[in-house]
Amino acid sequence: MIYFDNAATTRPNSGAVERALAFTNEHFFNPSARYRGGLKVHGELKTAREFLLKCVADPIQFDLIFTSGGTEGDNHAIFSAAKRGNVVISGGEHAAVFESAKELKNRGLEVRIAPLCSDGSVSVEGVLSLVDDKTSLVGIIHVNNETGAVNDIVSIARLVKGKNSRTVFMSDGVQAFGKIPVKLSKDIDLYTVSAHKIGGLKGCGALIKNKNCRGLSPLVFGGGQENGYRSGTENVLGIMAFYYAAEETFRNQKEKAEQVYAVRDRVKSLLDRNLFTVISSESGSPYILSVSARALRGEVLQHMLEEESLIVGTGSACSSKKPYSRVIEACGREKEELSGVLRLSFSPENTLEEAEKAADMLNKAASSLARKLLR
Amino acid sequence: MIYFDNAATTRPNSGAVERALAFTNEHFFNPSARYRGGLKVHGELKTAREFLLKCVADPIQFDLIFTSGGTEGDNHAIFSAAKRGNVVISGGEHAAVFESAKELKNRGLEVRIAPLCSDGSVSVEGVLSLVDDKTSLVGIIHVNNETGAVNDIVSIARLVKGKNSRTVFMSDGVQAFGKIPVKLSKDIDLYTVSAHKIGGLKGCGALIKNKNCRGLSPLVFGGGQENGYRSGTENVLGIMAFYYAAEETFRNQKEKAEQVYAVRDRVKSLLDRNLFTVISSESGSPYILSVSARALRGEVLQHMLEEESLIVGTGSACSSKKPYSRVIEACGREKEELSGVLRLSFSPENTLEEAEKAADMLNKAASSLARKLLR
Repeated sequence: MIYFDNAATTRPNSGAVERALAFTNEHFFNPSARYRGGLKVHGELKTAREFLLKCVADPIQFDLIFTSGGTEGDNHAIFSAAKRGNVVISGGEHAAVFESAKELKNRGLEVRIAPLCSDGSVSVEGVLSLVDDKTSLVGIIHVNNETGAVNDIVSIARLVKGKNSRTVFMSDGVQAFGKIPVKLSKDIDLYTVSAHKIGGLKGCGALIKNKNCRGLSPLVFGGGQENGYRSGTENVLGIMAFYYAAEETFRNQKEKAEQVYAVRDRVKSLLDRNLFTVISSESGSPYILSVSARALRGEVLQHMLEEESLIVGTGSACSSKKPYSRVIEACGREKEELSGVLRLSFSPENTLEEAEKAADMLNKAASSLARKLLR
Repeated sequence: MIYFDNAATTRPNSGAVERALAFTNEHFFNPSARYRGGLKVHGELKTAREFLLKCVADPIQFDLIFTSGGTEGDNHAIFSAAKRGNVVISGGEHAAVFESAKELKNRGLEVRIAPLCSDGSVSVEGVLSLVDDKTSLVGIIHVNNETGAVNDIVSIARLVKGKNSRTVFMSDGVQAFGKIPVKLSKDIDLYTVSAHKIGGLKGCGALIKNKNCRGLSPLVFGGGQENGYRSGTENVLGIMAFYYAAEETFRNQKEKAEQVYAVRDRVKSLLDRNLFTVISSESGSPYILSVSARALRGEVLQHMLEEESLIVGTGSACSSKKPYSRVIEACGREKEELSGVLRLSFSPENTLEEAEKAADMLNKAASSLARKLLR
């Protein structure tokens, strides 16, 4: 099997999971228990927290709250910070942000949606023109989960704060963490990450919070875990696996990105441009390559490729109920391109050989489907 | 080590966890992915859901929503259902319910707290006298997590609905699930359970919902998982481990309870009543025995016992920042009893030999500490 759907979820890093399991088997105590066993677990969670935070932020400026995943973190950020006035998000947000914004609209807030460029990145001028003195929250995805387009959140946050310093700036970093080098700046208030996109387990993530951000209220009330922001017994196995997987991910982040660049470029260069349009831009994350088999149906291709043991995505696995991807539509792509979208997403384990085989399968499947439709 | 803090968390069922891990290693796909690998995971989650639901409820009448644990489920139930008027809870609620109710108060709702009997069970008349036509929610814990007192939620829910049929009735079933036989009745709207109290993993639980209950709104917005009530990629490993652990727990639930009864009764009968008062009543869950070493300090005893490799709890591990337990205080116990509270909580793996050793250690530690204080 060639697995090119790593943006939906990666194969768990078995070393990291085994190590986490060995820890939790021995140290299974409740981290809130005040005997040594509990304190030990509590201490290890602290180590994990510090490590994960340091990967992308200065621990003097930022805190980290463990969550049940990226979606929860996005919801926590949005429903805390967006209490009044208007909210600005990009048209390229993940469903976790987009659907939360819809709910804000139901609750009477004004939601303003900044337009996208053709590669899925947000128009910076578009964002800025929507921000005013009533803007309580701006949410801009860091790496678009469908096209891989990278938004320069450090610069956007600075410009947003220049227009309204009281606006909370949040960013969904789920597809960026461990893949795109970033150091969160003082203008970024809230940043969400997920474990299962870098070899960790599903059901675990984190919300990174600027210590200056006063806009966060608790999401879950109870025993006061996570500094009162997120009560409930911690997902110790998930957190430890996240920590160990991140250790490996960040160890050779640059070399890994180079491998992924090579895989992406190989696929890209071998795709038959008579059949495929490349949606992702050169400057996007190498981990995601969005292409469209023009006038064909992506799901049909996906199933044909699955028969050949090539696993690819169509739209976002998280919100795949509409005929077209809302995000690709917002890129202003032609109608012909909308139906044939495939998302190829990579991991550092993918090889050039896989890239070549996959490109060949993609070309053959698209050409065979196109011939069938012509008949 | 003798581990008598199973109400805080149980040792994970290693067979269940290994089985779940074997599944997720092979089937690591995103359950929302629409290729076969994703559909397979989705299907297994459905099987797990159906099994867990059937353990305590009729699947024709109830649904099950996976959560990140008991606390999340309680919050989901409470903040959905308690929108107006007043809310009635018992004084014996877990922090997940109690702190959520406090937040409701901050938001302007009236919170009414029903009194407890001396064993920690709620006064049924107390509950009923507080319910009126403005009561939007009643929340009564099924098995008290500090004393093991069992509230007859089926009967209380019926009486509550008799007074106000529009009231949503919820119950925290975290310490009951797999331990106390129950079949949820039509009058119970929402019921929360947790995996890591029965050998599952921390960070996973479920909210069981009566199909007639119209009061539940989504807690987390996004990709629409869990029927739209709780978006975010599912914690597949946690859910599968929960399922497998529950299979084992429910297989011989009665025999297991008998073993636990025997362990509890042995400890209870061997405790020196000149030193200890038993707070739990005979009719309580056998899984929890709350005792008080009168006029001594529970934490000091806890640490002394830890030195002997006996692990016991003091109050609830989830909310242990106050000097006394709020719940034990609400039982109307004398001041002398409040400080010396120890919670011994059992699992079917505990033996009579452990019970005897533990009782001996408890007697020796309490008498030695009492002597020290007299000097």
